[in-house]
Amino acid sequence: MNNKPTLHTSLSPALLHLYDLNNSIVVIIDVLRATSTIATALFNGARSVIPVDSVSRCIELGKQIDGITAGERDGKVAEGLEHGNSPFEYPREFIEGKTLVLTTTNGTRLLHMALEKGADEIITGAFTNLSAVCEHLSQMKKNVILGCAGWKDRMNMEDTLFAGAVISKIGKYFSVNCDSSHLAANMYEKSGKDLFGFMKKNNASHYHRLMNFGLEKDIRYCLTEDEASVLPVYKEGKLLLKQRNR
Amino acid sequence: MNNKPTLHTSLSPALLHLYDLNNSIVVIIDVLRATSTIATALFNGARSVIPVDSVSRCIELGKQIDGITAGERDGKVAEGLEHGNSPFEYPREFIEGKTLVLTTTNGTRLLHMALEKGADEIITGAFTNLSAVCEHLSQMKKNVILGCAGWKDRMNMEDTLFAGAVISKIGKYFSVNCDSSHLAANMYEKSGKDLFGFMKKNNASHYHRLMNFGLEKDIRYCLTEDEASVLPVYKEGKLLLKQRNR
Repeated sequence: MNNKPTLHTSLSPALLHLYDLNNSIVVIIDVLRATSTIATALFNGARSVIPVDSVSRCIELGKQIDGITAGERDGKVAEGLEHGNSPFEYPREFIEGKTLVLTTTNGTRLLHMALEKGADEIITGAFTNLSAVCEHLSQMKKNVILGCAGWKDRMNMEDTLFAGAVISKIGKYFSVNCDSSHLAANMYEKSGKDLFGFMKKNNASHYHRLMNFGLEKDIRYCLTEDEASVLPVYKEGKLLLKQRNR
Repeated sequence: MNNKPTLHTSLSPALLHLYDLNNSIVVIIDVLRATSTIATALFNGARSVIPVDSVSRCIELGKQIDGITAGERDGKVAEGLEHGNSPFEYPREFIEGKTLVLTTTNGTRLLHMALEKGADEIITGAFTNLSAVCEHLSQMKKNVILGCAGWKDRMNMEDTLFAGAVISKIGKYFSVNCDSSHLAANMYEKSGKDLFGFMKKNNASHYHRLMNFGLEKDIRYCLTEDEASVLPVYKEGKLLLKQRNR
């Protein structure tokens, strides 16, 4: 039909197996808050972010490489770790030159799934680095899977909205034969870019959860575009900053 | 918090396991075209519709009970069966008093999954019987799972739109702590009730597939509200008409 690469959206890790990850770039999306924090830490000069899938592995690796251990379970700092999953914990004066060892409930797990399933390239995306993600995907001319981390295999609103934002911006460069992608794009358009208002009005589950922890500031930051517009690329166990072509 | 029953939307059979089906009414949704056709056949006087999960079982049972065998695989009449999955194949003069043995790609499979997972009651829903479904769910005051059949475990637009229509109408009677439900309702609202136009504009995968088979008439019928507003209830292997309380 045409020579455009394809773009699909996986709304939940439980749906990732439906998509062909070989020869594809997989974008790991965990807006509240893992991938927002990853972009922020790298933007602020972290040497790398190492995503690990368990708290014990996080502690072990943190000791081994003298890294900052961080992570949450069910939205709170996990026991035994030094830091949580808030982007505000990683300003330049703290994180510059350091390595962050991060374990999160949903995002890290999805990243490891994508790795096992043979993704050609893995990057992370969030509103904080929306432009960098879009620029990269439109330049690469490869098939794309937007992988929403969701919450314990349920899809969630904020990750879907981010997928929608990407599709609204660069969908025209892809062949999008995927109802999930159209759903996401429609949702993003319906939000009228007032993402915080949209999440509140719709009583989004994670909005509710984090507001109960007093984290409105985090939510607002994580829903703001391009506060930390770098491109984290996964290479040999680490998320590293990719220098952007200018 | 409150005493309202809960309502969740499962966007794909691959997500059904995330929801507690015990003590719940599960609505099987396969708008194009299984559940539209089930409502139509019963509305037109079919004695019952027996959903089966394989073509061979369909043929075997059809012979045994002298029923009409029908079904599709990948959108076409399956080999060895007498009829397809179009609602227009089942006018009153043909189907009245007869039993329809039906096998479909996605809807029948989801129904059997719901059965195995212990759903308290299983009904089928489509735009053709939207009001009957809404009336029943709002009267029963039980937890509800809107189960979208999708397409080979991918979510699809029309089933999600139907879930959204139900939520738009009767969501206020339920506690809806479920992002999928909010997304479905938003999408339905965004369609502005021009469902055919919305499916076309968004190049919905199944719209495209059926249009290629020359089935615009089927799509338009299946997206029209209350053409056959009866309530099919699953009982001991059969979908039967439930008499509505007036």
